[in-house]
Amino acid sequence: MRIKETLFIISSLMTLGLTAQTDDGVQRFDEFRNPKKRNIIQIPEVKGMQVLKCDFHMHTVFTDGHVWPNVRVQEAWKEGVDAISFTEHVEYTPHKDDVKPGNLRSYELAENMAKENNVLLIKGTEVTRGTPPGHFNALFIHDDHNLVVDNSVAMDEQAIQAVVDQNAFIFWNHPGWKATQIEGSYEWLPFVEKMYQEKKLHGIEVVNGFGFHKKALDWALDRNLTVIGNTDIHNLIAHDYDLAREGVHRTMTLVMAKDRSAEAIREALEQGRTVAWSSKYLFGKEEHVRDLFEACVSLGKPYHHKTNNKNVLTKYYELKNDSDLYFELELVEGEGTKKIVLYPGSSQILTAEDGQKSLKYSVVSTYVRSDKHLTIDLTL
Amino acid sequence: MRIKETLFIISSLMTLGLTAQTDDGVQRFDEFRNPKKRNIIQIPEVKGMQVLKCDFHMHTVFTDGHVWPNVRVQEAWKEGVDAISFTEHVEYTPHKDDVKPGNLRSYELAENMAKENNVLLIKGTEVTRGTPPGHFNALFIHDDHNLVVDNSVAMDEQAIQAVVDQNAFIFWNHPGWKATQIEGSYEWLPFVEKMYQEKKLHGIEVVNGFGFHKKALDWALDRNLTVIGNTDIHNLIAHDYDLAREGVHRTMTLVMAKDRSAEAIREALEQGRTVAWSSKYLFGKEEHVRDLFEACVSLGKPYHHKTNNKNVLTKYYELKNDSDLYFELELVEGEGTKKIVLYPGSSQILTAEDGQKSLKYSVVSTYVRSDKHLTIDLTL
Amino acid sequence: MRIKETLFIISSLMTLGLTAQTDDGVQRFDEFRNPKKRNIIQIPEVKGMQVLKCDFHMHTVFTDGHVWPNVRVQEAWKEGVDAISFTEHVEYTPHKDDVKPGNLRSYELAENMAKENNVLLIKGTEVTRGTPPGHFNALFIHDDHNLVVDNSVAMDEQAIQAVVDQNAFIFWNHPGWKATQIEGSYEWLPFVEKMYQEKKLHGIEVVNGFGFHKKALDWALDRNLTVIGNTDIHNLIAHDYDLAREGVHRTMTLVMAKDRSAEAIREALEQGRTVAWSSKYLFGKEEHVRDLFEACVSLGKPYHHKTNNKNVLTKYYELKNDSDLYFELELVEGEGTKKIVLYPGSSQILTAEDGQKSLKYSVVSTYVRSDKHLTIDLTL
Amino acid sequence: MRIKETLFIISSLMTLGLTAQTDDGVQRFDEFRNPKKRNIIQIPEVKGMQVLKCDFHMHTVFTDGHVWPNVRVQEAWKEGVDAISFTEHVEYTPHKDDVKPGNLRSYELAENMAKENNVLLIKGTEVTRGTPPGHFNALFIHDDHNLVVDNSVAMDEQAIQAVVDQNAFIFWNHPGWKATQIEGSYEWLPFVEKMYQEKKLHGIEVVNGFGFHKKALDWALDRNLTVIGNTDIHNLIAHDYDLAREGVHRTMTLVMAKDRSAEAIREALEQGRTVAWSSKYLFGKEEHVRDLFEACVSLGKPYHHKTNNKNVLTKYYELKNDSDLYFELELVEGEGTKKIVLYPGSSQILTAEDGQKSLKYSVVSTYVRSDKHLTIDLTL
Repeated sequence: MRIKETLFIISSLMTLGLTAQTDDGVQRFDEFRNPKKRNIIQIPEVKGMQVLKCDFHMHTVFTDGHVWPNVRVQEAWKEGVDAISFTEHVEYTPHKDDVKPGNLRSYELAENMAKENNVLLIKGTEVTRGTPPGHFNALFIHDDHNLVVDNSVAMDEQAIQAVVDQNAFIFWNHPGWKATQIEGSYEWLPFVEKMYQEKKLHGIEVVNGFGFHKKALDWALDRNLTVIGNTDIHNLIAHDYDLAREGVHRTMTLVMAKDRSAEAIREALEQGRTVAWSSKYLFGKEEHVRDLFEACVSLGKPYHHKTNNKNVLTKYYELKNDSDLYFELELVEGEGTKKIVLYPGSSQILTAEDGQKSLKYSVVSTYVRSDKHLTIDLTL
Repeated sequence: MRIKETLFIISSLMTLGLTAQTDDGVQRFDEFRNPKKRNIIQIPEVKGMQVLKCDFHMHTVFTDGHVWPNVRVQEAWKEGVDAISFTEHVEYTPHKDDVKPGNLRSYELAENMAKENNVLLIKGTEVTRGTPPGHFNALFIHDDHNLVVDNSVAMDEQAIQAVVDQNAFIFWNHPGWKATQIEGSYEWLPFVEKMYQEKKLHGIEVVNGFGFHKKALDWALDRNLTVIGNTDIHNLIAHDYDLAREGVHRTMTLVMAKDRSAEAIREALEQGRTVAWSSKYLFGKEEHVRDLFEACVSLGKPYHHKTNNKNVLTKYYELKNDSDLYFELELVEGEGTKKIVLYPGSSQILTAEDGQKSLKYSVVSTYVRSDKHLTIDLTL
Repeated sequence: MRIKETLFIISSLMTLGLTAQTDDGVQRFDEFRNPKKRNIIQIPEVKGMQVLKCDFHMHTVFTDGHVWPNVRVQEAWKEGVDAISFTEHVEYTPHKDDVKPGNLRSYELAENMAKENNVLLIKGTEVTRGTPPGHFNALFIHDDHNLVVDNSVAMDEQAIQAVVDQNAFIFWNHPGWKATQIEGSYEWLPFVEKMYQEKKLHGIEVVNGFGFHKKALDWALDRNLTVIGNTDIHNLIAHDYDLAREGVHRTMTLVMAKDRSAEAIREALEQGRTVAWSSKYLFGKEEHVRDLFEACVSLGKPYHHKTNNKNVLTKYYELKNDSDLYFELELVEGEGTKKIVLYPGSSQILTAEDGQKSLKYSVVSTYVRSDKHLTIDLTL
Repeated sequence: MRIKETLFIISSLMTLGLTAQTDDGVQRFDEFRNPKKRNIIQIPEVKGMQVLKCDFHMHTVFTDGHVWPNVRVQEAWKEGVDAISFTEHVEYTPHKDDVKPGNLRSYELAENMAKENNVLLIKGTEVTRGTPPGHFNALFIHDDHNLVVDNSVAMDEQAIQAVVDQNAFIFWNHPGWKATQIEGSYEWLPFVEKMYQEKKLHGIEVVNGFGFHKKALDWALDRNLTVIGNTDIHNLIAHDYDLAREGVHRTMTLVMAKDRSAEAIREALEQGRTVAWSSKYLFGKEEHVRDLFEACVSLGKPYHHKTNNKNVLTKYYELKNDSDLYFELELVEGEGTKKIVLYPGSSQILTAEDGQKSLKYSVVSTYVRSDKHLTIDLTL
C-alpha cells in the first residue's frame, strides 16, 4: 500500500500515536491495532544516577539478523529500552548474496528514526573470531573501513587491535558458548588474559539471551571488568521473549548513568556501574546490586501487632517494591516471614517478632557471584 | 478441607505469600495458583499529599451483597485499594431469613483481617430511603443501634438525623439512579436542599460503578460538596470489572490525604480534596484534577529537531505519564501533535513547531464539569 | 443501588449479555466492564460420550465458605463448568452466630439461578468426621434433616449411614490432608476398608485444589473406585486460581457422560468414567486417560521429508491438540522428536526417521498411577 | 552467538519446541522465553470444506518490508495462518542500494522453512502501477524475469499482461487507498473495467489491514469477483496488531478449500469461496458468510422455561459459538433476547417467548454488502 520512504512513515505513525482517520468510503476498524506507546520500565534513581536500560548486542539483515534496522529501534521504543547498539559481525555475512555488507550501515539507516524516537544508538560491531577465543563486541567505534574481515587465527590480534585503535569499549561475548568450549568446559584463555593485561578488555557478557555464564560473572568480579547482559537478538524480540505476559522483558544491562546520553553510558561502562538483568534475576557486583535493591524496595513502619498463643508479640510491616524488577527473599537470620516474593510494582506483608533490630534476608533472585546471592538487612 | 477459623487462615495465607509446601504423599502443583501480592496503583504524591485509593460504597451478605466481609478486604488488598467502607442498607435486608442483620456486623467480622492486611476500614452504612429522596451513605459512624429501619416517608428526616447525630460524613448516592427519577429526569430535591442548608450533606456520589451522573458533578461543584466515586459493589469485583486486562481498575475516589489514616481521609473528605476515577476518566474540581495531572505527567526537554520541506523547524519532546492513570489530550491552541494518548506507565512523542512558548491541550479523559474537560498548557 | 431480588438481577444481567443503556443524565463508561459470556472448555467427545466439567466439592457462607451460593453458579457459568455441588459441612458451622445453618439451603437459594444459566446443580453435603477417618462427600442426597451433626467418634458410622440411607454417591475427601495423617503419613484406614467392603464408598478425591494425593490414586485404581478431582473452594475461584492467565482452570473432574444431565453424571460416576484435571495434569485410570488423549490429539499425514548428512530420511508431521487440555510428551522408543509440549488449542511439528511404524511416547503430564505416566504409540 | 545458517537454526528450534538444555557452566533461565507452538484458529469445516486462513499480501526487505522472509513464515506458523504469499513490488524497490532486488527471491529464501513448518507458500508479486489504476496482486506466478519494471502509464497494460501470461490469479488491491482516489473519491475505473471484461481481473481486496473498502465489496458482489482480505504487512505483525490480547488476529482471507494445498486454494479463489476477516468483522458474499455462521454457531434445545408476571412463558436456550470468530446479533423479528454478543469459544443464554417458530437476527458483525448485514433465522 505504501510507496513512500519506509522509515519516515514508521516514525510518523509513532509520533501521531493513533491513526483513526477515515478516508471517504474506507472504514477503519482499529480495535485490534496495537496501541502506539513507549512503555516505561519503572526503576527509581540509584544514588542520584538514572538507571538506563541498554542492550549492546543485536543483529539485523546486514549480517545474520532477520530484521531491517528500523525494527530494532521500534522494539526498543515500545519496550522502553533507552540505548541499543547494532553489533553486526565483521567476519560473518551469510546474507551477502542479497545484502551488501557494511558494519555501520544498519546504524546509518536507523540513525534518523532513533533520533526522532529518543532511542540512543551507539555505534558498535561484533568481532567474530574463531573459537577460541570467540567473539568480542566493540562499542563506540566510528569507522568500519579498517575492520579485519579475515578470520584466520593469525589475524585474531589484529582484529582486536583494529577496534582498540578506535578507542572502543570492548567486552568478551558469551564465554560459555558451546563453540567456545574446550572439551565441554570454558576457561579464561591466554588470549583473553593478554587482552586484559594490555587493557584491551573492559567487560564481559555475563548473560546472553536466556543463558547465565556463571564463570564469566566471577571473572568479571575478580578482574573488575564491567558486567554486561544482552539479548544477542537475531529474530524478533517478540518471537524470542513472551512479551505478552506481564513482567516479561528482554535481557539487558542496567547502566547507572549521570544522565541519559551516550557519553554518560560510556562513562558508566568504564566505571563498571552496571547490573545485568535477565528473566527474574539480577547479576552484578555486590555494591551495585545492593544499591539497586535499596532504591527499589522499602520497608514501611509497623502498622499492626498481635500477640500469639505463646505470648510472643509480632509486628506487621509492608514491604514495597516500587520498581519493575522482581525480588525473591529468603530469611537467613531473625524471627520473621520466611519467604517473600516481591513482584513488580507490588508489596507484601512482612511479620517480625518484636524486640529485634533487623532481619537478614538472602535475595535469591540476585547473583553477586556465581554461587552467592545478595544478603540484605531489613531494619525494623 | 479446612476446619479452622476462616479469617485466620486467609490472613495467614496472605502473610505467607506463597505456600508451596509438600505434605508426605501429597504433591503440590502450584502453576495455576494466583500469586499473592498487593498491587500498587502508581500515583505520585500531589502537592505533598498522598493519593489514597478509596471505595466508600459496598455490600456483603449482611444485606444484599454476595460475599462474606473478608472477601472485600482481600479484594482491596489485591487491587491496592487503601480504604474501604461496608455500607450495608439500614432498611433493606433481603437475606434476613438466613443472615441475622446488623449494620456494623460486616465491619466487626473483617476488622482484624483488615488490620493485618493494612487495609483501612471505615465504619459506614447506607441510609436507604424511598425515592425520592433516595439513598445516602454515612461514613465514620460508630453505632448501629439507633439507625432508623422504618423506611416510610414520614421517617426520612429522622433517618438522616440518626447518622447526623453520630457526626457522620454524609453523601447522596447515585442521584440519577432510575428509581430516583421523576418522569425520566433527576433533580436537585427540596429534601436534599434542606439537608444542604442544614449542613447535613457533605458530598455527592458522582460516579457509581460504570455510571457517571452528570448533573451530580455540577451540583457538587456549584455547592462545594465533595466529589465521590464508588463501586457500590454487590457481586465480586472480578465479576463486574475485567481485572484480567491490563489497566482495568474498580471505580474509586482518589483522596489527597496528609497521611495514610482514616483520620486523614476524613479531613480530606471534609476539605473536598478528591477526584473520582472510573474507567479511563477522572471527575472532580478543576483545581484537583489539574494538580493530579501535573503530578503524573511531565514534558521532557527537546531531544531532537527537524526542518520540514516548508522550512519550518519542529522540535521533539517526550511526554511521560508516571502514573497508572490514563490521559487523552487533544490540541486546542498552537502548532503541535494533535492528539496524544498517555497510557498508564508510558510516554509518547510530542512535536511542536519552534518559536512557541506553549501548547494548549484539552484533557478529554477528564471532566471538571459535566460538559467541560480540563485544559492544560504544556510549556515548551 | 439495587433494591430488588439479588438472584433475579444477576441472572437477568447474564441473560442480557451487555447492558449499555444510558439513563437520562447518566453516561455509561463500559470499557472496563467484564464481558458476560460462558467460556467453553474445548474437549471433544470421547467414544460418543460428552466430557462434562464437574466440581463436586465447594462451600458457601452457609458453612465456612466466603460467598453467597449464587456466586458459585456465576463462577461455574463463566468458566464453562457444567455441574457443581454445594457440599456444606454437616458438623462444622463457624458462621452459625450470623447465618442459620442448613445443609441444603445453599442449593435451595441457587437452584433457580442454576436452572436459568444451564448449570447442573447436584445436591450434596460433606460429612466432616474427626480425623481419622476424616471427610466424605455425599452426592445426590435429597434431605438434610437426618444428617448426623454430632461429630464424636462413636457416631462416625451412623453419620455415613445417614447418607447411605439416601442412596448417596460417596467419596473420601483428600485422604492425605494433614489432619488425617498419623505420624506424617496417611493410610488406607480400617474404617474406610469397612465402608468399601460394605459398598458404601464409591470414589476417592485424588486431587483437592492444588494437591495431588498420590496414594489415593493407587487406592482408587486397585479397588476400582471412581477418581475425583475438586476445588474444595472456600474463597473466590478467582482469588485462588490465576484465571487471568490463558489456559488456567480450576481443578475438576472430567466426567464422560451419555448426555448433559445429573442422571448421566451419576451413571458415569458409578461406572467410574472420570479423569481428574488439575493444573496441567490429568489423573485417572489408564483406559480413560488414553481415551481422552486420543480424542484430543491427532497426528497428521507426513507433509515434508528431508535427508540429512548421514543419509537418513526424516519425515515431518503435525501433531494437533484440539482441546483445552495440556499434554507433554517424552520419547520412549523410536527415532523422532524427543520432547513435545502440546499447549491448549495448538500444534507442534514432529519429525521421525523414515521406516518406523510408530513412535512410543510417555505423556508425562498424566498420571495413570502415582508413579506411572500414560504411554502412547503414534502410528506413523 | 550463532555462526550457522539462519534459516536452519530457526526451523530446528521450532521443531524442537523447547530448548532448556544446560551447557556446562551456563545456566538457562527460560521463564520469559516465548513458548514455541502453532496456535490453531478454530473454525469448523464449512459444508465439507476446510476453512484455510490465508494472507495474500505482504512485503519483506526485498522491497519495502522490514523483515527477512523467514520472519513471515514464523509469524504465519505461530498465528496459525495456513498460507501466505510474498507480494513484493515489481516497480518499487526502495532498499535497492542495500538489497539486490528479485521479486521471487523472498519466496526462494523462505521456501524450505515454509515446507518444514507446514506453511503453504504461494508465489506472488505486486504489480504497482501509478494511480490510477493503482496496485494489483498476482498469485501463482512462476517466473519474475519478464515482469514490467517501467511504471509509466504507457506500460500499465503490458505490466498486467506480463502476469496474465503466467496464468496468475489477479486481484485489485485496496481500491480506496488515498493515492488511488480522484478528488477524494474512488471509482470503478475504465482500466479495471477493461481488465474485467477481458477476464484478467479475478478478485478485489475488500479489506487491507484495518481498512474496509466499502465500495470494493459491492463491486466484487455485483461482478462475481472474489472477496479478499489481507494485511499488506510491511512491519512486524506483532507491531501492527495487538496480538497479546485474546482474540486478536491479523486481517486475512478465509478460503473454503477442498483440502489444505495450494491447488485447492487456487480452485477456491477461482470459485470465489472466500470470506474476508478483519477485526471482529466478516465480509463476503451472503451465501458464504451464512455458511460460515451456520458452521460456527448452534442453538441448543430449550433447557428451562419460566412464566412471567404477565403470564407469558419464556424458554431458555444456549447459543454456542464453537469458533474463534466473533458474532454480534441484534433481534429483527420475534420476541426474544434483543442483543447477543458471541465471543470466540463461548456461549450466551438466549430467551424466547414460547409459541414462536423462530427469531430473526441481524448479524451486525458481518457485511454482505457495504450497507447490509447477514440476517439469520434461529429455529426454536
